[in-house]
Amino acid sequence: MPERNRISKPAARRLSQYLRTLQARLDGDASTNRVSSRELGEQAGVADAQVRKDLASFGAGGQPGVGYQVRALHDGLRRALGLDKPWRAVLVGAGNIGRALLAYPRFGEEGFDLVAVFDRASAVVGRRVAGHAVQPMSNLQEAVRRSGAQLGIVAVPPDEAQDVADALVRAGIQGVLNFAPRALRLPAHVAVVAVDFTEALERLAFEASLKPTPSGRSKGHG
Amino acid sequence: MPERNRISKPAARRLSQYLRTLQARLDGDASTNRVSSRELGEQAGVADAQVRKDLASFGAGGQPGVGYQVRALHDGLRRALGLDKPWRAVLVGAGNIGRALLAYPRFGEEGFDLVAVFDRASAVVGRRVAGHAVQPMSNLQEAVRRSGAQLGIVAVPPDEAQDVADALVRAGIQGVLNFAPRALRLPAHVAVVAVDFTEALERLAFEASLKPTPSGRSKGHG
Repeated sequence: MPERNRISKPAARRLSQYLRTLQARLDGDASTNRVSSRELGEQAGVADAQVRKDLASFGAGGQPGVGYQVRALHDGLRRALGLDKPWRAVLVGAGNIGRALLAYPRFGEEGFDLVAVFDRASAVVGRRVAGHAVQPMSNLQEAVRRSGAQLGIVAVPPDEAQDVADALVRAGIQGVLNFAPRALRLPAHVAVVAVDFTEALERLAFEASLKPTPSGRSKGHG
Repeated sequence: MPERNRISKPAARRLSQYLRTLQARLDGDASTNRVSSRELGEQAGVADAQVRKDLASFGAGGQPGVGYQVRALHDGLRRALGLDKPWRAVLVGAGNIGRALLAYPRFGEEGFDLVAVFDRASAVVGRRVAGHAVQPMSNLQEAVRRSGAQLGIVAVPPDEAQDVADALVRAGIQGVLNFAPRALRLPAHVAVVAVDFTEALERLAFEASLKPTPSGRSKGHG
């Protein structure tokens, strides 16, 4: 799949953001089935020239003054990002983040299937969480093999995260989504994406500090 | 603060990732107080030339073959990102994501103070969650004014997210961290950062699809 290999990681992140905008348009009762590079750029926080360059890089050409066809661009982006086939994920950690993920309404629609849930705590094992019976870690290897799951989600405390990631890799997982605020050491053949709440707050503080202070209200600092 | 205004959003995101690496080095028992652009780049997933360019843009010069001094670079990055002064945040939504955030060990150390928690559900109001008494939404305006909170965290179901964000803006919040999988319409003077679990999974699937398949193991697709 040569188109996919040509996309850089930052570009993939932008494509994913464009995909969110397109998905929202498909969900809504939009009056038009066209979308402009300007609209896609506004949602993703990039210039429309960047949007056009990104989309042209995998062959999606918009027409000046007409824009892109929403459904066609949506499907093209999903193909470019490798999302046109189903991805199966296992979740380790049935705590707050794990439960939030299990309650997340969109994964199925977006092509992700959470096939099994694991936890180290014997008090949680056997309980049902959002329709899944929580399994002991000793079941992980067999469950990954049987389900063909390719992705693993680490939603455990930071001091357990590396052990859990190692177990996922031994079970044959190809990618790890890490919610623990700790960098993981993984073999080169395993992809990793971290969701770091502190980084998100830092980005927000930075962006808020750049905004002009509305008159008549103290900004607190800056 | 001219240095801060010159930093683009993608650059700020990279600086924040460098900051995570530096923080980890400060936390650990590192044998050296120097860090290379290569090490910073590896953690952030960018080339070392990009790291050097990013850091030079706000005056942090590394020495070839010697690298950057960890503590000085850490403090310089925090200043560049506007994190050298405390930020106060209120949380709306005491569900799974809200509880996960309240249990997050690092916010205080990173200069963020979660000062109050709100929920719409009367069944939750008054309960204590991680040391915070959950307050009714009717307290929001007064609590933001009194605490001087600048940031608001939206951790409510998607169909409530816009109403909650509007209430935060009316209360005088300057930035919104949005965990609901729905784009928010906010006035131009309010910053917004979204934490989108689907986007994170999509990025992971994309990156996993680029990895070479280890011999002897089926990749599932590709």
